[in-house]
Amino acid sequence: MELLEKDFLYEGKAKRVFKGEHENSVIIYYKDSATAFNNVKKGTIVNKGIVNCKITSILYSYLKENGIKNHLIETLNERIHHCDKLEIIPLEVIVRNKIAGSASKLLGLEEGYSINSPIIEICYKSDSLNDPLINDFHGIALGIVTRNELDYIYEETLKINNLLKEFFTKCNLELIDFKIEFGKNNSGEIILGDEISPDTCRLWDLSTGDKMDKDRFRRDLGNVEETYLEVLRRVELVGEKC
Amino acid sequence: MELLEKDFLYEGKAKRVFKGEHENSVIIYYKDSATAFNNVKKGTIVNKGIVNCKITSILYSYLKENGIKNHLIETLNERIHHCDKLEIIPLEVIVRNKIAGSASKLLGLEEGYSINSPIIEICYKSDSLNDPLINDFHGIALGIVTRNELDYIYEETLKINNLLKEFFTKCNLELIDFKIEFGKNNSGEIILGDEISPDTCRLWDLSTGDKMDKDRFRRDLGNVEETYLEVLRRVELVGEKC
Ligand SMILES: Nc1ncnc2c1ncn2[C@@H]1O[C@H](COP(=O)(O)OP(=O)(O)OP(=O)(O)O)[C@@H](O)[C@H]1O
Ligand SMILES: Nc1ncnc2c1ncn2[C@@H]1O[C@H](COP(=O)(O)OP(=O)(O)OP(=O)(O)O)[C@@H](O)[C@H]1O
Ligand SMILES: [Mg+2]
Ligand SMILES: [Mg+2]
Repeated sequence: MELLEKDFLYEGKAKRVFKGEHENSVIIYYKDSATAFNNVKKGTIVNKGIVNCKITSILYSYLKENGIKNHLIETLNERIHHCDKLEIIPLEVIVRNKIAGSASKLLGLEEGYSINSPIIEICYKSDSLNDPLINDFHGIALGIVTRNELDYIYEETLKINNLLKEFFTKCNLELIDFKIEFGKNNSGEIILGDEISPDTCRLWDLSTGDKMDKDRFRRDLGNVEETYLEVLRRVELVGEKC
Repeated sequence: MELLEKDFLYEGKAKRVFKGEHENSVIIYYKDSATAFNNVKKGTIVNKGIVNCKITSILYSYLKENGIKNHLIETLNERIHHCDKLEIIPLEVIVRNKIAGSASKLLGLEEGYSINSPIIEICYKSDSLNDPLINDFHGIALGIVTRNELDYIYEETLKINNLLKEFFTKCNLELIDFKIEFGKNNSGEIILGDEISPDTCRLWDLSTGDKMDKDRFRRDLGNVEETYLEVLRRVELVGEKC
């Protein structure tokens, strides 16, 4: 699988996107670069691209089998996905099963604080504005989504949360929170895009409470590479049984 | 009307609250002090207390006549309201008919940007957290409100917006945005509390576009006292005709 400069479309902090094999598809290449705090902290997590590509492959197959449409067409090699080309909706959709990270600061609650039902947040994907938390009225007023589209996104997001919680529990991991992105495919349908990995989830070991995700990099907790590999090992084991 | 030290309950940046004439009422005294940017800028607007007390009286009578329950029982003198004692719900409920102020910064839109339908925001009233913008999920997870209570608050808020827009248009003022607070009375009913005044609204002159509200103080635009008096004059004229 050779990626050609001439097919390059755009690049983010974790992935590079190229023209796909047909008009409505893209090639997504997973990099090892890691960033945190909106690009203030930068680094590399060796083999992260391979780990996240594989974990996303397994989770997206699992989600698909369970009725969640998503962009993954095929895994082309250890770092490359062939995906439906989406017009990404500029919202980070965040689900929280327990309070951690920015929600902890926002609400003045300790990390690990339990809530009765999941919190969904939407953040406006805008680097210059620092991806601010917004509400439904803002999203609609900005013309980013309609009320119906948001309702669909929330419904789909809660289904994804239930499926992922179940999956990660089998991995002996607690799904604390995660971020997903949706986009519109060629026929205008809203489907799940981007990735689901230790970069985009908070996963706490169910036995020890250890952080098994990008917080190890953000907070300099050590064993970053090893942790990503351990999550992959567990996800592969559970994935095989699905 | 004498306010006694022994009846003092608590004090905010704009008002002092005292025990009321009966167990379920309070006395609210309107001060001249003005603050902005979460207490960073402090000052005095001469006679603001009188102006805001009077404007709130007129608007709360008008709202009551139009079916909006609120805390105002009686105006006792030019600075004093006798009100139902409320357990204030710690949410600032903000309505925007056009983009201005914090929404302009949050969303990267110029002041005066038009939106198709009103935006409602809720901010968690917490001085230590800086009154952060939150969403419905947060409010419910924090135990501040239930889903049903929020639905009622939004419904009531939109009615209030329509009534106020109509009133201020007759004053030749455009209601750009405003902030209200709700609380629970003795029987657990949610009703409108606090004040509605040039401190809590953005009002732009419909002919000239001039700012006729606390932004004159916040942004050092001059003619602060005169502007508050001019808004009072217009509100009184329209109020007499209601
Ligand atoms: N199926 C898809 N079609 C088109 N673009 C996609 C698809 N899936 C993900 N993307 C986009 O690919 C880009 C690169 O991903 P990456 O995660 O590296 O971005 P990022 O650094 O998080 O930046 P951004 O703020 O744009 O998300 C992102 O803009 C992402 O939204
Ligand atoms: N009917 C009522 N019963 C009890 N308290 C009330 C009532 N109406 C308003 N209050 C409260 O009176 C307090 C004083 O008002 P003021 O506007 O000065 O407060 P503030 O400086 O805005 O501070 P805060 O952040 O507490 O609102 C506020 O806490 C307000 O919520
Ligand atoms: Mg990304
Ligand atoms: Mg106040």
